[in-house]
Amino acid sequence: MPQREDAVIEVTGFAWVPPFARRHVRDLRIRWALEEVGLDYKTRLISAVERPQSYFGEQPYGQVPYYVEGDIRLFESGAIVLHIAEKDERLLPHDPGARARAVTWLISALNSVEPYVMDMVTIDVFCAGQEWATLRRPDQVKLMERRLGHLSTALGDKDWLEGRFTVADLIMVDVLRNLSPDQLSIPQSLQDYVARGKARPAFQAALAAQLADFIPDEEGVPA
Amino acid sequence: MPQREDAVIEVTGFAWVPPFARRHVRDLRIRWALEEVGLDYKTRLISAVERPQSYFGEQPYGQVPYYVEGDIRLFESGAIVLHIAEKDERLLPHDPGARARAVTWLISALNSVEPYVMDMVTIDVFCAGQEWATLRRPDQVKLMERRLGHLSTALGDKDWLEGRFTVADLIMVDVLRNLSPDQLSIPQSLQDYVARGKARPAFQAALAAQLADFIPDEEGVPA
Repeated sequence: MPQREDAVIEVTGFAWVPPFARRHVRDLRIRWALEEVGLDYKTRLISAVERPQSYFGEQPYGQVPYYVEGDIRLFESGAIVLHIAEKDERLLPHDPGARARAVTWLISALNSVEPYVMDMVTIDVFCAGQEWATLRRPDQVKLMERRLGHLSTALGDKDWLEGRFTVADLIMVDVLRNLSPDQLSIPQSLQDYVARGKARPAFQAALAAQLADFIPDEEGVPA
Repeated sequence: MPQREDAVIEVTGFAWVPPFARRHVRDLRIRWALEEVGLDYKTRLISAVERPQSYFGEQPYGQVPYYVEGDIRLFESGAIVLHIAEKDERLLPHDPGARARAVTWLISALNSVEPYVMDMVTIDVFCAGQEWATLRRPDQVKLMERRLGHLSTALGDKDWLEGRFTVADLIMVDVLRNLSPDQLSIPQSLQDYVARGKARPAFQAALAAQLADFIPDEEGVPA
């Protein structure tokens, strides 16, 4: 387990979130990357219910994760996993062409796929049942399915986007796992891709560590 | 002018788009970055009206820009400008801490600001007048203004996000200039920030080059 009290790397997470939001808080991405390369870390838990004003001085939007490693202070899960990946060839190839492709796919997950996925989550979870969401849904589903189709074509019959697992797959899998075949049509190849990502021992260890950090349910909803 | 027929770097753009979309096609970001560091490039123009099927083999979503530099083949404007920035200290500091902060802000522009901006553009431009857009607008404006408030606080009284201009400012300015004070409340500090970015000679040169590449209007709308 890379979670250790004396670790150099510190990552923030939320002390408690409602059950439907667990497994989806983005410190998971950092834990997953650190588990993949076996780097120790410790966590600092922030109240999601009453976010301390001082925390906005670290993370401009008051979100998690925030990352401290000596003089390096980062926010944005995408930037943090890229920083970790640069330490280890298992997450980011050294070959300049292959490295650039992995970064391209990482940013594609963050800028060309996640915004569509979050719009779907807004419609189907956060605003479910609202009139605007019901009216907008059919067109949003079309946009999402078209994008998934292009992504499935790009993946082809490869296991990972550029053949071998990289930090780009870590983010893309974490983005795509917010969608369910109950919501819309997801190409089988992408369903298998997400399943491969979630089956990785590092993902499983990261998820278990995140869930273990939340205040236990028997202690009730924090004020 | 860095645009030269014998340049090593090739960037794709669209041959024609409707007037309202000009100045907003994302090859502008690449042209801007290349102008900042004085690197020559040539353009390959793609039909936005009938996108050639073969182009999807290069750019998975059929969009521009796509970037070729020897063996390096990239899509995603964020990844391309980061690749260019890594060549030149003027866009990306060498100091590891400062470099990591610039990458954090670059990804923040792409993943934490642009999705909100694009949702506003969808509501106010692409879907203007549609019932769902009218219903959704007040809440979307609140979300956007809240995010702009946090961003303005983080910028403080600095000229650029981390003091000196970096590739992160290039993307953040290009994202924010899609919003207008006619649409919603934009902190004055962010309006000034965008104006500083647009006043840079490299931005002006990039914009002129992009506009000059479109098929002239007197030739009519392409089939």
